[in-house]
Amino acid sequence: MFLGRFRSAMEGEFFGFIEGNTVIRVGDQKSFPLSALKILPPCMPTKIIGIGLNYRDHARELGMELPKEPLFFFKPPSAAIAHMEEIILPPQSNEVHYEGELAIVIGKYIYKPRNLAQIKEAILGYTCFNDVTARDLQRKDGQWARAKSFNTFAPFGPFIRVDIKDPEGLKIETLVNGEVKQSSYTSELIFHPFELVKFLANIMTLNPGDVIATGTPPGVGRLQEGDVVEVKIEHIGSLVNKVIRSREEEKWN
Amino acid sequence: MFLGRFRSAMEGEFFGFIEGNTVIRVGDQKSFPLSALKILPPCMPTKIIGIGLNYRDHARELGMELPKEPLFFFKPPSAAIAHMEEIILPPQSNEVHYEGELAIVIGKYIYKPRNLAQIKEAILGYTCFNDVTARDLQRKDGQWARAKSFNTFAPFGPFIRVDIKDPEGLKIETLVNGEVKQSSYTSELIFHPFELVKFLANIMTLNPGDVIATGTPPGVGRLQEGDVVEVKIEHIGSLVNKVIRSREEEKWN
Repeated sequence: MFLGRFRSAMEGEFFGFIEGNTVIRVGDQKSFPLSALKILPPCMPTKIIGIGLNYRDHARELGMELPKEPLFFFKPPSAAIAHMEEIILPPQSNEVHYEGELAIVIGKYIYKPRNLAQIKEAILGYTCFNDVTARDLQRKDGQWARAKSFNTFAPFGPFIRVDIKDPEGLKIETLVNGEVKQSSYTSELIFHPFELVKFLANIMTLNPGDVIATGTPPGVGRLQEGDVVEVKIEHIGSLVNKVIRSREEEKWN
Repeated sequence: MFLGRFRSAMEGEFFGFIEGNTVIRVGDQKSFPLSALKILPPCMPTKIIGIGLNYRDHARELGMELPKEPLFFFKPPSAAIAHMEEIILPPQSNEVHYEGELAIVIGKYIYKPRNLAQIKEAILGYTCFNDVTARDLQRKDGQWARAKSFNTFAPFGPFIRVDIKDPEGLKIETLVNGEVKQSSYTSELIFHPFELVKFLANIMTLNPGDVIATGTPPGVGRLQEGDVVEVKIEHIGSLVNKVIRSREEEKWN
């Protein structure tokens, strides 16, 4: 079962469940042809949290020790874009990378959970995420915030898969112009989504709509103007975005 | 002129202007005694941005070169608390520090501004901010996100001063239990608030209510259980918070 967020020219924005090529609006069950709607990011996060090195195969590739606890960073909600919207390469960077990731979507307020059941209840579902990163600025700054925070640098969706109990052992791939660049399985995750929610919710309140991108497998690489990038996760979906270059120059009087 | 956000048991949450000991509600001009209201954080940020090293006197003290561009990080909106609410020391840290700061509050959508006038228009006003930081976790992680993101780690307020055109040359002090720990002037800022908004709005959209904490002067230090910490900025206000220790233990079955 897939939940999405949509805009209709006539009826504004709403949540709906996908049934084949039809969207059933949450609330009144009215149906719309999917092709008549604009797909929006499937939720409205109050925060987007990204996780650093979290794939065993990636750590092996880099010759790094497995981390003892998750390392996280924030992407601002202003960076969110939907499936089929454009990733814009900013003039400040010459090296923008894709990072295909499985993302957790929170459905229910959670802070200092007492047991695993509370964590499972707090998770609405899972979606595809592209943690777009300006690698040159990430190296330059040391801190990752700027590199991760440009407008359009948080594509996610297209929809939220809400009926998977445990996203274990799913194939995850990133393709650029149809060529497979990243390929792994969620069973390679060092910290399981439930552990990530436990760790984070012991630091801060997670709210409905919050998104946690769980980290990227090996094979990250560059995006160029005109590229089409796809994050494809078995049973979760396929997130497609085209890459363009910023047409505006920074002008200043 | 000071704008605040309040809760009345009878009438819920609202914005209001302060006139002496009275709050004039925005919209219908109804007046309430300030003492009858709970003071809330004066706005609801979609993001809170903090700036690293941004005081000349602090850079001198540390023997560091002045940065060529601002270095920023995010604090999640879930960390926000109001004047007189309690800062909670989390069990994960043994070294929590105050950082008194001048904060900019955005009043109007801004992205890729074309001139200084647009920047000035986008700023609603200024407030006091305490960029509470778990110094031990900041050192341990390298990335600053966890150290800055615990619930209660973003006290700001009490109100927004909305009629200062340029917050230049204001005295800024942090006091712990009445003793002055930080003392400087906003004229020591390396990047002026207008420059910060220009820099950030060329990366991401800033939305109404977004908060930018502009960096801290020399003299940061430890907070202990029972401390009362005050961030005092000339013409802007005095933000007071008591420090308590988390009473809950992390329990897990």
